[in-house]
Amino acid sequence: MIQSRDAFEARLRQIGAERYHDLHPFHHMLHSGGCSPDQVRAWVVNRYYYQHSIPMKDAAFMSRVEDASMRRKWRKRIEDHDGTDANEGGIRRWLRLAEAVGLDPDYVASCRGVLPATRFAVDAYVRFVREKTLLEAVSASLTELFAPKIHANRIEGLLKNYEFADDNSLSYFRNRLKEAPIDVAFGLAWVLDNADTLEKQDAAADALIFKTDVLWAQLDALAAAYVEPARVPPGAWRPGDGAPGMGGGLSETG
Amino acid sequence: MIQSRDAFEARLRQIGAERYHDLHPFHHMLHSGGCSPDQVRAWVVNRYYYQHSIPMKDAAFMSRVEDASMRRKWRKRIEDHDGTDANEGGIRRWLRLAEAVGLDPDYVASCRGVLPATRFAVDAYVRFVREKTLLEAVSASLTELFAPKIHANRIEGLLKNYEFADDNSLSYFRNRLKEAPIDVAFGLAWVLDNADTLEKQDAAADALIFKTDVLWAQLDALAAAYVEPARVPPGAWRPGDGAPGMGGGLSETG
Repeated sequence: MIQSRDAFEARLRQIGAERYHDLHPFHHMLHSGGCSPDQVRAWVVNRYYYQHSIPMKDAAFMSRVEDASMRRKWRKRIEDHDGTDANEGGIRRWLRLAEAVGLDPDYVASCRGVLPATRFAVDAYVRFVREKTLLEAVSASLTELFAPKIHANRIEGLLKNYEFADDNSLSYFRNRLKEAPIDVAFGLAWVLDNADTLEKQDAAADALIFKTDVLWAQLDALAAAYVEPARVPPGAWRPGDGAPGMGGGLSETG
Repeated sequence: MIQSRDAFEARLRQIGAERYHDLHPFHHMLHSGGCSPDQVRAWVVNRYYYQHSIPMKDAAFMSRVEDASMRRKWRKRIEDHDGTDANEGGIRRWLRLAEAVGLDPDYVASCRGVLPATRFAVDAYVRFVREKTLLEAVSASLTELFAPKIHANRIEGLLKNYEFADDNSLSYFRNRLKEAPIDVAFGLAWVLDNADTLEKQDAAADALIFKTDVLWAQLDALAAAYVEPARVPPGAWRPGDGAPGMGGGLSETG
């Protein structure tokens, strides 16, 4: 039997409570000041690949939407990341973070040094959105429901614990605090409206679980490669790679 | 041996001179006032399917572009069709044309009544852009090189020959006169820059030929179904379908 709208929403939120990557040990290490400068850099290098792929994911979604008004709403996500005349966009903001932690932004933007496991997880998400139902694609985006908390914690934790952290380097997260709630309000309402059978509710919940796996796997990859016992795979970023020689502001204060 | 930049550009332009759909008999009939009101309606119904699919084609392209600055440039095409806060967009403009010729815009927007041959041709274009190289996808868009002439002729021919034609109903074409040259200047330069071997030049030329086929096939489908001896296939628009009862302003004056 189909779940009530409220019960279904609670089910989706419970997925976040149990599986979102704020529960991952690497997340805690990062926010509490437990990461070395190189561990922060590894996170910045790898997470960039996710940022860089998200507008392609959103364009893949739009390429399957017949309704122009829904495409118009969704287009905002691409604008938020790629930028507009008035807004530099999330990708450039992330590169300012890269610079602040002492990485060459061109190196980071090249995506050389990204862990294969990061690529596989992120590419799986883009492919998921290209191939699954629109309902599953929108539902997978609902991890944004859980993002404001992580971004607020992140800003607070990074500011407290790392010298590089300031309004400039953290502007990506401040902007996401404003942008994500607008996106997710539309996405959540759309999923609640369109998951009109139990089968569809199950598919939407599975899609959100899949997406939490995508995020979790990225932190697993970082932990495997850069937390002792560290095993950096061939070709991936190693401490010293992508440093423009200027050192950057990344010494720990916490 | 690779062609010079000028020779290659001339080759692309020659494809338009020989194959663009302004050479199709239906195009001549339409612009010269030779189409009956129902033939104009059939064109409006079917051509809508192309308009409706173009933003999905452009999103499919963007979903494969790694470079944020190129995505930003390309995004303009989607904005032109889907609209922005300041611009209603080409799809709505086309529906105003539909209304002006006495069709129910909701019927036209539903895409019921579109000829299967129109769908096959247009869907083949979307799939082409999704699957072929970026160079071939951009090159296929270069039929826009030849569009301003057809749009200018169209405005002149329709205004002269049909009562429904006025600034309101023809606003789609007037806007394309402004928009298409901006898009195509970028696209042409990109193709000339990126087709840096003879093999790529050949692929780009073939892609443009493919696109002229897509446009030509749409007029062939209209001629087969709606020009005597007319053979409307099952389920496609028939005179009287999609008329809201208000008649519209479509009587011939020419």
